[in-house]
Amino acid sequence: MKNEVIRFTDPPRIISTCSVVGKMEKEGPLGHCFEIFDKKDKYGQDSWEKSENEMQRLALRHAIQKADLFDDQIDALFAGDLNNQCIGSNYGLLDFDIPFFGLYGACSTAAEGLMLSAMTVGYGIYKKTAAVTSSHNCTAERQFRYPVEYGGQHTPTSQWTVTGSGAFIVADSGDHPCICDVLPGKTIDRGITDINNMGAAMAPAAIDTLTRYFTQTNTHPLDYDLILTGDLGYEGHRIVKELMYERNYDLSKNYNDCGLLIYDREKQDVHAGGSGCGCSAVVFASYIYDLLCKKQLKDVLFLGTGALMSPISVQQGQSIPGIAHLIHVKG
Amino acid sequence: MKNEVIRFTDPPRIISTCSVVGKMEKEGPLGHCFEIFDKKDKYGQDSWEKSENEMQRLALRHAIQKADLFDDQIDALFAGDLNNQCIGSNYGLLDFDIPFFGLYGACSTAAEGLMLSAMTVGYGIYKKTAAVTSSHNCTAERQFRYPVEYGGQHTPTSQWTVTGSGAFIVADSGDHPCICDVLPGKTIDRGITDINNMGAAMAPAAIDTLTRYFTQTNTHPLDYDLILTGDLGYEGHRIVKELMYERNYDLSKNYNDCGLLIYDREKQDVHAGGSGCGCSAVVFASYIYDLLCKKQLKDVLFLGTGALMSPISVQQGQSIPGIAHLIHVKG
Repeated sequence: MKNEVIRFTDPPRIISTCSVVGKMEKEGPLGHCFEIFDKKDKYGQDSWEKSENEMQRLALRHAIQKADLFDDQIDALFAGDLNNQCIGSNYGLLDFDIPFFGLYGACSTAAEGLMLSAMTVGYGIYKKTAAVTSSHNCTAERQFRYPVEYGGQHTPTSQWTVTGSGAFIVADSGDHPCICDVLPGKTIDRGITDINNMGAAMAPAAIDTLTRYFTQTNTHPLDYDLILTGDLGYEGHRIVKELMYERNYDLSKNYNDCGLLIYDREKQDVHAGGSGCGCSAVVFASYIYDLLCKKQLKDVLFLGTGALMSPISVQQGQSIPGIAHLIHVKG
Repeated sequence: MKNEVIRFTDPPRIISTCSVVGKMEKEGPLGHCFEIFDKKDKYGQDSWEKSENEMQRLALRHAIQKADLFDDQIDALFAGDLNNQCIGSNYGLLDFDIPFFGLYGACSTAAEGLMLSAMTVGYGIYKKTAAVTSSHNCTAERQFRYPVEYGGQHTPTSQWTVTGSGAFIVADSGDHPCICDVLPGKTIDRGITDINNMGAAMAPAAIDTLTRYFTQTNTHPLDYDLILTGDLGYEGHRIVKELMYERNYDLSKNYNDCGLLIYDREKQDVHAGGSGCGCSAVVFASYIYDLLCKKQLKDVLFLGTGALMSPISVQQGQSIPGIAHLIHVKG
């Protein structure tokens, strides 16, 4: 089998991160880990879209400041979001006079940006790059379902789009958690057509990427402290665990999902858990990154998961392809 | 000034291309250069979106075949399009079991994909990659303006979205046109708010990238056989020529635009010219690539230009940022 894992002989470092969230996220179990929040989710703006732009601006601004850098020391930005034409990044990062690579990986964008950052830094193309992404509950609801004012009911398998933005600075040196290797995802479609069950649509992609990774690296789940998917929620997490078990990979000990970590499903009305570009971005940029820095986590597989449909493709009866990009990080 | 140009000591080669177009493009002055066309623009599909997916599938399928390769010899795909959530690439390239990097660079996506292909191949991360993009007049009109059945009138500065898909195979060896260096664009916003004047919105980004390129490489326009922007059309082309002249760069001899080349503005009702991801992709993949292969063009600066707004950002009164990625190709 072809080896698709990209290894770095001199692994790039994640030298700084920043997480920016909204009210629901601040009130959740990881609330104390997030750095910036606005209890109205508006960040002083007059539209939800502009609020999301502002969250990306704040996340990158603070991540650069925390690394004690000036903007011109960042060689490139890898950024994207869920909004049509990725306006969260296009407008949110306009202030930064830095070469810009626009990405669209749906909710996998945090991992896609980190992966391209690691590839360009790890192979000496750049010295320092930034990966930025975001989602906002109200921009996503309006765009993919109904405006929040409509009060549409959610099904039990539906997920709650996270209001949040995460930024990461990747550099060629430093004493920080490093990205040892990455495995890019493939688009996988197993025929799921239910737009209210994104977890099930994305799970096959996570299973494909995990299986390829374990096979190609000749490792097993227990070789890692934590295997963490981006936003599969309760449904997708269960599917991955069950189907991986059938493939002789037991994930019962150390597998979690950012969409399950970010909210308290007992107390917060989020149905199957969190989702959105911002979900994996803010959980990884705060809680997980902190544990890696403290060496309480030493070896993590982080999989950004994305559902690659649009409202039009769903209306036209097409099923929902998923993708999962894997980043192997060491504390 | 910081040098942002990425040079390749062992320049990657564009070993194969394919162009797939619709009726208007086939009837235009470059019609004889395009390889695959459908006079109904439908490619046997029951929706415009599915037709665009099929165009991407055909473009990549034929580009791989022409290079005498099998799918598993392509290490990665860099792809994107104008459709919401980039469904042209997500669905169109599902057949290919190849690691997938989703991009959003608006109409600059052909250049962004070629740039990331060149970077990953040129620095030894991959041996062979593909860059694919598309646009379709009817999907773009419906999404950004009005459904074509509505019969909305276009202003004189508006452009005609090209129905077309272009695919490129980039490899680490071969006797083909090579990518010597690239310069990624930055997002530039000069306050243009007219959604029917994309050329003017994108021109400042082209001017920024060209100026940075000439300064950082210490070269001048006449050092190149051709300077070619992606889809500025009549308005944007004129603005770039005039403003570059004020900066002491005379582009009057060798500057053209894919949006001006693809249609006959006298005979075809396209107003200011062609636009869309497919515009620069099919012109560069056919006419320009052929001239480079025949050594009739030896030194070309190709700039993919993109307008990074969305219908929502325009409705909310925001101006339109642009971006321009530069690829330096030698025949």
